[in-house]
Amino acid sequence: MTQPLDQICIVMIQTSHPGNIGSAARAMKTMGIHDLRLVNPTRFHSPETKALASGADDILEQARLCSSLQAALADCHYVIGTSARSERSLPWPQMDARECGQWVAEHLPQQKIALVFGRERTGLTNEELEHCQALVHIPMAFDFFSLNIAAAIQIICYECMMATRQIQASKPPEVTSAKGLEEPATTAAMESFFIHLEQALVEVEYLDPDNPRLLMRRLRRLFGRINPTQSEVNILRGILSAFQGRKFIRRSSADQINVRNT
Amino acid sequence: MTQPLDQICIVMIQTSHPGNIGSAARAMKTMGIHDLRLVNPTRFHSPETKALASGADDILEQARLCSSLQAALADCHYVIGTSARSERSLPWPQMDARECGQWVAEHLPQQKIALVFGRERTGLTNEELEHCQALVHIPMAFDFFSLNIAAAIQIICYECMMATRQIQASKPPEVTSAKGLEEPATTAAMESFFIHLEQALVEVEYLDPDNPRLLMRRLRRLFGRINPTQSEVNILRGILSAFQGRKFIRRSSADQINVRNT
Repeated sequence: MTQPLDQICIVMIQTSHPGNIGSAARAMKTMGIHDLRLVNPTRFHSPETKALASGADDILEQARLCSSLQAALADCHYVIGTSARSERSLPWPQMDARECGQWVAEHLPQQKIALVFGRERTGLTNEELEHCQALVHIPMAFDFFSLNIAAAIQIICYECMMATRQIQASKPPEVTSAKGLEEPATTAAMESFFIHLEQALVEVEYLDPDNPRLLMRRLRRLFGRINPTQSEVNILRGILSAFQGRKFIRRSSADQINVRNT
Repeated sequence: MTQPLDQICIVMIQTSHPGNIGSAARAMKTMGIHDLRLVNPTRFHSPETKALASGADDILEQARLCSSLQAALADCHYVIGTSARSERSLPWPQMDARECGQWVAEHLPQQKIALVFGRERTGLTNEELEHCQALVHIPMAFDFFSLNIAAAIQIICYECMMATRQIQASKPPEVTSAKGLEEPATTAAMESFFIHLEQALVEVEYLDPDNPRLLMRRLRRLFGRINPTQSEVNILRGILSAFQGRKFIRRSSADQINVRNT
């Protein structure tokens, strides 16, 4: 049976210091979280990485190197980005670390949840934020100071584990549900949907292909908040195909979805 | 007015890696805790310390170098030691990190509270544990793995700040009480009391001076749990003096207590 915490992955984007990757692996392991994904780290394998991992070598060995954030998130159902502070002005749902732990614990093990950490100095870009359905921040004494990235990962993983333990202690053992259409759609399925949507909107000239950014951003947020199931995405894509005068064909697996000209 | 978190101090004993001191200073600063005390660190001032402090230079500059744990704790009212796991077999009150944060928040700002962290590999010695009134551990996924010391300080400081914020949000602003005899006794006052107690017990031949350890250990725990006020300590010492046929004289300040032969 899948352990709930196995459904969490930690994504680090363009990490500069290899030592931080090692410290992050150790932080994850202390809290029982093992799935590390590294998007274009400056340097990964260094003696410092291994020294600071201090025994979390299994996490480093299994860590997945990804060439894009999109690739790192492909099998995830829900993506939570980290921000240095509460950004109430941004139009994403916002959580603090404790709320995030509770949210994550309540949605495991049905959903694969990604927690995305940006660069050491500059965090996540606006484009990367577009891939997130919610934002989490760690409360701090000063807004102008910042946590080390491994320390931030330590606190978020700690809160996820604490909340998961609390929930497990209070509920009877559950029957693992079979993978199916009523599960939330994966990020890969959502990406295919957004591409499909963009194509469709360009075709009907609702969207300017030379400047699709703002509209698509708002649509991403909208559908991201809905957190649709796979069957709902199938319906949405069926509608798009119908608008396009195309036929939408579902392959054998719910994850392998393609649009074909008829 | 003293901020509640100013009443917390972090004590690190014989830290081996100067980088860990820097990381600890950064972890403390993010959570608004500033009082760092270093008992015989292997090396303190190194480029690594400053690099990893990453702007928490003020904490490093004000950090107090101490030649003994006793000296580091002299002005503290309550001492909480950290242990790698829940040690239910040990006869100290035990807390996890969240309970510790709540306990600390409820007792600030009246008490100066020390959180003591042992060596990176071996933690606290039994003798050092004797100076603690309670133990805290951070829940982990595996008992056989350990947190980096700065990561442990990060989580404990985070829990203290979170709990302090919660309490402050829920209570009206309070009047700071004047320093007085109804405050909990400082560790220095308690140490003088224990020395006095030991002398007295040896004098009445209740205690073998060649092997005072076990009995004194139990008595330390007992009085540690009581967490007496300064006036209660004065009473206890008055009783001891009476047993000894001496006169117990209280000097001008409650902290300066001496026993004199009459």
